[in-house]
Amino acid sequence: MTITLAVDAMGGDHGPSVTIPASINALSKYDQLHIILVGDKELIQTELQKNKYTNTRLSIQHASEVVEMDESPQSALKNKKDSSMRVAINLIKEEKAQACISAGNTGALMATARYVLKMLPGIDRPAIASSLPNQKGTTYMLDLGANTDCTAENLLQFAVMGAMLVSSVTGKPKPSIGLLNIGSEDIKGNEVVKQAGELLRRSHLNFYGNVEGNDIFKGTTDVVVCDGFVGNVALKSAEGIAQLMGRFLTQEFKRNWITKSMAFVSLLVLNRFKKRLDPRRYNGASFLGLKGIVIKSHGGADSYSFYYAIRTAIEESKNNVLENIQKQLELEVPLDISSSENI
Amino acid sequence: MTITLAVDAMGGDHGPSVTIPASINALSKYDQLHIILVGDKELIQTELQKNKYTNTRLSIQHASEVVEMDESPQSALKNKKDSSMRVAINLIKEEKAQACISAGNTGALMATARYVLKMLPGIDRPAIASSLPNQKGTTYMLDLGANTDCTAENLLQFAVMGAMLVSSVTGKPKPSIGLLNIGSEDIKGNEVVKQAGELLRRSHLNFYGNVEGNDIFKGTTDVVVCDGFVGNVALKSAEGIAQLMGRFLTQEFKRNWITKSMAFVSLLVLNRFKKRLDPRRYNGASFLGLKGIVIKSHGGADSYSFYYAIRTAIEESKNNVLENIQKQLELEVPLDISSSENI
Repeated sequence: MTITLAVDAMGGDHGPSVTIPASINALSKYDQLHIILVGDKELIQTELQKNKYTNTRLSIQHASEVVEMDESPQSALKNKKDSSMRVAINLIKEEKAQACISAGNTGALMATARYVLKMLPGIDRPAIASSLPNQKGTTYMLDLGANTDCTAENLLQFAVMGAMLVSSVTGKPKPSIGLLNIGSEDIKGNEVVKQAGELLRRSHLNFYGNVEGNDIFKGTTDVVVCDGFVGNVALKSAEGIAQLMGRFLTQEFKRNWITKSMAFVSLLVLNRFKKRLDPRRYNGASFLGLKGIVIKSHGGADSYSFYYAIRTAIEESKNNVLENIQKQLELEVPLDISSSENI
Repeated sequence: MTITLAVDAMGGDHGPSVTIPASINALSKYDQLHIILVGDKELIQTELQKNKYTNTRLSIQHASEVVEMDESPQSALKNKKDSSMRVAINLIKEEKAQACISAGNTGALMATARYVLKMLPGIDRPAIASSLPNQKGTTYMLDLGANTDCTAENLLQFAVMGAMLVSSVTGKPKPSIGLLNIGSEDIKGNEVVKQAGELLRRSHLNFYGNVEGNDIFKGTTDVVVCDGFVGNVALKSAEGIAQLMGRFLTQEFKRNWITKSMAFVSLLVLNRFKKRLDPRRYNGASFLGLKGIVIKSHGGADSYSFYYAIRTAIEESKNNVLENIQKQLELEVPLDISSSENI
């Protein structure tokens, strides 16, 4: 099965010097992959020459503009109609590509994708989903920051999208869904979460119940659902302590020549440990709820990391995520999730 | 300066076998400390004998009941009027103790403390605050789970309490306050957080501005303020990834005899690393906003950990946290934070 991806070659902190080597790497690993590099033609060609690469499965789509990393989504939408980001998304709309990948400005990418592609019927708002490491494998979590104020219906829709993402990509027929909440005796979550719990219990999904922050990394459920404010804070807090631990470990090993020699002896183990939790391997967040597959890479991604974002796009394209979400949404129609006014 | 603390000897998963050795340890380290052990007199005496301890700075206050770890706060309030928890809190009310420490049921402890001690004037709701490790020292964070739905005024009150806690305990005159929010271009937080930002900008506090989840562990500000839902999720997510990292590190070192020998060689470093992030050293969450100092230890605390909760109570008692909070609240009165209806 042939897959064609549109890569926003200009997006992110490093642009073509990251996106192009990553694309070349992906092409070498996937025989059936075609990539359209979108952006400044000359810059792209220069970078391709640097990498001594010519391949019939690669083409260039010129785009004259670039959305800045700090540009407002409104400005990007209004003033950058020939941006690499916009043109890459247009390629999905025109059915010339199945998915697009960008390391550009998150807000602009979301606004542009929503404007160009529109929402799936039954979904009120898009959500950002990502995979995270757990003790047994991978947890998928959403929303990670697209929606700060959510309704219970939004959370149910996120659950449907998350379940279908996981079942499509991993083949698991009934992924378990956890609703992120706070534990402890007296306190059983805020009002929206309580209502979302009710909706989820009545849905056709495999609803596990409430989970807490630590369950994300325990792997208690396949999917963890929350609003974008909570999801973003949870993710960044986890990143924060992981960085702190890494720094402390390095400091302790660098304390003096004795501890340095210990680090040298343990290098094999330390490198394996580092690799196992390497956030670059989890790069590539999915914008779910749109009529098209849009993958957001971390802005500061290197080419190793950007390659994983491309891989996410490949997995979602070949496993029909969109079709599966739509089917499940139709199943949930008796719950009227497509119209929040009816609930 | 003499300090008298009431210790709920029966609270937590382990009761007297943890609380009593920890109390003995604290008495040995603080000359001016008096402890009233509250709970079943016989059990307490048996445990004291086991530890071969007699000390004039230690007394026992009998209490015939114990609040169960899974008991509802309502049941504890109604049916356990002679519980070790309730009697310990009563001792503050009766001015026989300056603070109390309990490892018991969080919800019941909060409800009982609120019922017996009442709130400080100007504070609508109590908050749970705790110290967390950062790259430079310690970040104080609140609320960690007492309030799931907060108003902007609640967040401002939390900021006042957090600032005064830090300035009292650390001596820092103007601790910086960060408002926990989500970064990224388009999205600037939910409505309540935006309003809280406005209030904080107009306050007399040293308001830094918005911070993100990773800033907690970077130490960007001295205090991080958020609602109890977000705070609890952030804390538990961080715990979750910390546990995962610890487990992965152990697994990599235990992989085979070569890696095991590397662990043996690196033991010194690994132990120092472990100690530096030992969550037991951060045990002892403060219930702020009450007319009395109440410290909650982790339910599963061992005696090393419970000792740190006692230490937190000592620090807060001798540094007049309550008086300082009240003074700052009076200063913020022009903002009418004491009456949310006026804002």
